[in-house]
Amino acid sequence: MTSPSAVYGDLTTQGASSNIAWHHTSVDRAARAQQRGHRSAILWFTGLSGAGKSTLANAVNSALFERGLSCYVLDGDNVRHGLCKDLGFSDAAREENIRRIGEVSKLFLDAGVVVLTAFVSPFKADRDKARALVDAGDFIEIHCAADLAVCETRDTKGLYAKARAGEIKEFTGISSPYEAPEAPELRVDTGSQTLEESVEQVLAYLSAEGVIPQAG
Amino acid sequence: MTSPSAVYGDLTTQGASSNIAWHHTSVDRAARAQQRGHRSAILWFTGLSGAGKSTLANAVNSALFERGLSCYVLDGDNVRHGLCKDLGFSDAAREENIRRIGEVSKLFLDAGVVVLTAFVSPFKADRDKARALVDAGDFIEIHCAADLAVCETRDTKGLYAKARAGEIKEFTGISSPYEAPEAPELRVDTGSQTLEESVEQVLAYLSAEGVIPQAG
Repeated sequence: MTSPSAVYGDLTTQGASSNIAWHHTSVDRAARAQQRGHRSAILWFTGLSGAGKSTLANAVNSALFERGLSCYVLDGDNVRHGLCKDLGFSDAAREENIRRIGEVSKLFLDAGVVVLTAFVSPFKADRDKARALVDAGDFIEIHCAADLAVCETRDTKGLYAKARAGEIKEFTGISSPYEAPEAPELRVDTGSQTLEESVEQVLAYLSAEGVIPQAG
Repeated sequence: MTSPSAVYGDLTTQGASSNIAWHHTSVDRAARAQQRGHRSAILWFTGLSGAGKSTLANAVNSALFERGLSCYVLDGDNVRHGLCKDLGFSDAAREENIRRIGEVSKLFLDAGVVVLTAFVSPFKADRDKARALVDAGDFIEIHCAADLAVCETRDTKGLYAKARAGEIKEFTGISSPYEAPEAPELRVDTGSQTLEESVEQVLAYLSAEGVIPQAG
């Protein structure tokens, strides 16, 4: 029954058990990509409130899921009430919010998941820090470029009205700046395109970049 | 070419594009489980430094990966230098560290991934808060129960020697308490069992709980 045993702290010993096999090294990103049939990436959606970031990210996520990819959306719904619930909306808090989202995105990237983040992320420096955490090509910045006037007209959540009334402080576009990306990987005109057109634009980019495997 | 278009903020409209289909609702955990063929879970490894948490978690992760499951390890290597690099080792910092790890684990759980966390996580209250974030059955606490004497004898990283010399403050087991789980889902004797035996014990539990699908 006894054979050379693997010891704790040493994974270089091949398991000798009858029904267990593990690799000499930990499972890495390359192994995950090979198993899942696609590489991972961070799709970083940025834009004003109401520009359609979360809607577009979720629609792209559904399309990727339909194609069998591992994918996940990080947005206000699952981050602001959880990981970042201790943070407010001051500049410093926004910076820390985006820093954590960047770090969590890096973990999902490492886990082989295409992660889609949908946050205003108004400051270029913060977005660039998130970009700098990963290798070139892994960070795909997608500017949802609806104009402020369009977003304010939509005002689906009534936030612009409250911001104009002074009920919300430091609201991006009204009382806090939005620094539009100068050279995003992709700029999507979410102000005038249909959602379908925007989804197709993103999918075409991902296909060209090899994130979406070529259809068989 | 034109058909009723989905609009931003409204995903209830079925996409009418020729090559895109998305669901009425966002992709949820149940859909992911169905697609991947397994449910997700949080495997929360806790124990003293040197007890073998990270080694066991990585070995279990490799075994799960071999079986085709989506799985990922969170440990000091990928969390302490990233998401939690702003945190020290005071009681408050440890609490926030574990809080964030719990929240990130919940995101991975939602993403359909079996996530394995390998942190000392010495305080019962902090572990229980992480448990309370998710539904019953989703949080599997695994106590790596090697005795302090065993861990200190191993001292693979030389940390106990430094703690005894006072070079490391608030070191769990020496100058900071470890609150062992009273009723963990699983207690693994990582002090005397081989790594293979411990991996088999964890896999047997996961199989019994339906996390590992029955082999075809």
